[in-house]
Amino acid sequence: MLIGVDAGGTSTRAVVLGETGRCLGFGAAGGGNPVSWGPDRALAAIRDAIVAAARAAGFDAANGDDEGRVPGRRAGEVVLAMAGGRGFIAPEAIADALAREGISCSVAIESDLLATFCAGTAELSGYGLVAGTGSAAIRVEGGRVSATADGLGWLIGDSGSGFWIGRRVVRASLAAVESRGADTLLAAMLLDELGIGDRAVRTADGRLKSLQALVDILYRDRPVELSRFAALAFRAAGAGDAVAAAILADARDRLARTLRAVHRDEVSGPIVIGGGVARRLPGLAEALGTVAPRASGHEDAGAAPVVLVQDGAVGAGVLALRRNGVAVDESVFRQLVTTLAERRAACPA
Amino acid sequence: MLIGVDAGGTSTRAVVLGETGRCLGFGAAGGGNPVSWGPDRALAAIRDAIVAAARAAGFDAANGDDEGRVPGRRAGEVVLAMAGGRGFIAPEAIADALAREGISCSVAIESDLLATFCAGTAELSGYGLVAGTGSAAIRVEGGRVSATADGLGWLIGDSGSGFWIGRRVVRASLAAVESRGADTLLAAMLLDELGIGDRAVRTADGRLKSLQALVDILYRDRPVELSRFAALAFRAAGAGDAVAAAILADARDRLARTLRAVHRDEVSGPIVIGGGVARRLPGLAEALGTVAPRASGHEDAGAAPVVLVQDGAVGAGVLALRRNGVAVDESVFRQLVTTLAERRAACPA
Repeated sequence: MLIGVDAGGTSTRAVVLGETGRCLGFGAAGGGNPVSWGPDRALAAIRDAIVAAARAAGFDAANGDDEGRVPGRRAGEVVLAMAGGRGFIAPEAIADALAREGISCSVAIESDLLATFCAGTAELSGYGLVAGTGSAAIRVEGGRVSATADGLGWLIGDSGSGFWIGRRVVRASLAAVESRGADTLLAAMLLDELGIGDRAVRTADGRLKSLQALVDILYRDRPVELSRFAALAFRAAGAGDAVAAAILADARDRLARTLRAVHRDEVSGPIVIGGGVARRLPGLAEALGTVAPRASGHEDAGAAPVVLVQDGAVGAGVLALRRNGVAVDESVFRQLVTTLAERRAACPA
Repeated sequence: MLIGVDAGGTSTRAVVLGETGRCLGFGAAGGGNPVSWGPDRALAAIRDAIVAAARAAGFDAANGDDEGRVPGRRAGEVVLAMAGGRGFIAPEAIADALAREGISCSVAIESDLLATFCAGTAELSGYGLVAGTGSAAIRVEGGRVSATADGLGWLIGDSGSGFWIGRRVVRASLAAVESRGADTLLAAMLLDELGIGDRAVRTADGRLKSLQALVDILYRDRPVELSRFAALAFRAAGAGDAVAAAILADARDRLARTLRAVHRDEVSGPIVIGGGVARRLPGLAEALGTVAPRASGHEDAGAAPVVLVQDGAVGAGVLALRRNGVAVDESVFRQLVTTLAERRAACPA
């Protein structure tokens, strides 16, 4: 039994695999990102997802069977794909928590960006780009990350990410409300979203009361929560709003620049993209395909294929297989994708 | 005796004035902004500055003289100019603290933006623009603020401010280091500023170690601290750096838009500017003068005069005089400016 775990900000998903890539069990738990949730809560989510997946696979973690098939003996090296990496949670702490559940194993922490790449392709080289709340790009060679760009967080990086778009949505809305910037549908959408009425009332010094209410709400949350307003940009752009369309076009260009920063002509391969913003951003796949084209010598010379990842748990599974010596070719990869989807559909969570 | 106080982020300055606008005493203390320092520390700084100014004016706060010239009887309404306004510190709490020092008075809190305007002109109408760590513009009519734009804080407002420039400096530097953006002198300046060496060393996954060091440092501080890197933009632009020059030009345009948002043709008057960024931003005065011109009927029709404020305490003094019934004409204003400068020069702080 091989175990891969994808610990994300909103949920943690674990897969138990056989050596052919067949998914034997799937389990999910709450957010497992130690930066968002703290190490204790993240660790508990990671453990719970693994235990659920092991149970779903028919292994009772507490009691091994007669042939010594205690899951712990067979788990080998569990691969945990996680943003932020090993600085935030010690692999040993996870192994200890699993040992207490009857699963003895070692734990290797891998980049969540690499897991995204591996969720989209069985190839060992190519490029990955993630744009969700944050954004980053990687170059992959021989199955390892050989270059990384951005992913530097909401304050000083993550260009073109959900936070980046959400912040621009809010700033453009406030500028429009105050006549400092162009009119935009975003302003009314934002006030609606936050349930702020009385939009024409002003205080004695000429301030709109609605603006003060908006400011009070927005500073109460953590800054990174502005990412939730990225959704308004997609909605307003869909309704023909020029300001929203310009924000999204700028985000797309910045993500393309982030990918270009890791591109090398001599490394060609698929471009795997993941994250809620990457999924929705108009024209992103086309823009990326021309940034990192297949080299001219390649059989598919020209724009590289762009693969949209739906299930990051696949990538954690691929990494777990590879880490434990299984060569993941196209057929193993397909087997994993198909059987994981089946297991997932059967999962009550 | 009339008292005006300018409570800023880094220092609090109090002036004691006679009714002719003559400055009788000046006192300074630490930062008096309750948002930055908390209400207790801010209140102590405000009290200390007032007590120091009263002593400098020759009033011993503890003992009134025979003619009943206890400072408290004469202080009337103390005017406190403060960002954020009355939401953060109660006027009554300040009055209580002063009563314990033998100064009985009531306290009125005024906008720091209005104080900046009043520090630059004796006119009752016109425009004020402040660009320091934050940025905002006001329209003044009949000595009161009639419209305000921006000043909405680092996260969602303060376009063109020191924070805004500093954040752009850092982002442009990181983009250059990662080849996501144009080369710029800012990158080396930023690494120098933070004492980061070993700039070519990379980790196994292709990350520059210097970049990681930079990220660690920048997220350790409060976000608003990025404003300190605005200074690098001025330095790099001075050395011919195109990226830095573009950031400053954009900041200037945004500040001009903020001023334009409060401009009305029927309100003409001087444009008073204050704050460290406003002082240094190339071409700002010219840009602002054309945004809010003197109306065509005015004797000085055309670009409005732009006045650069050096001493915000003057504005708090003007507001204290007006609030206590003194008409501040050009001669009273000049008297205040001159005598305050003398008192200030004599102040040991």
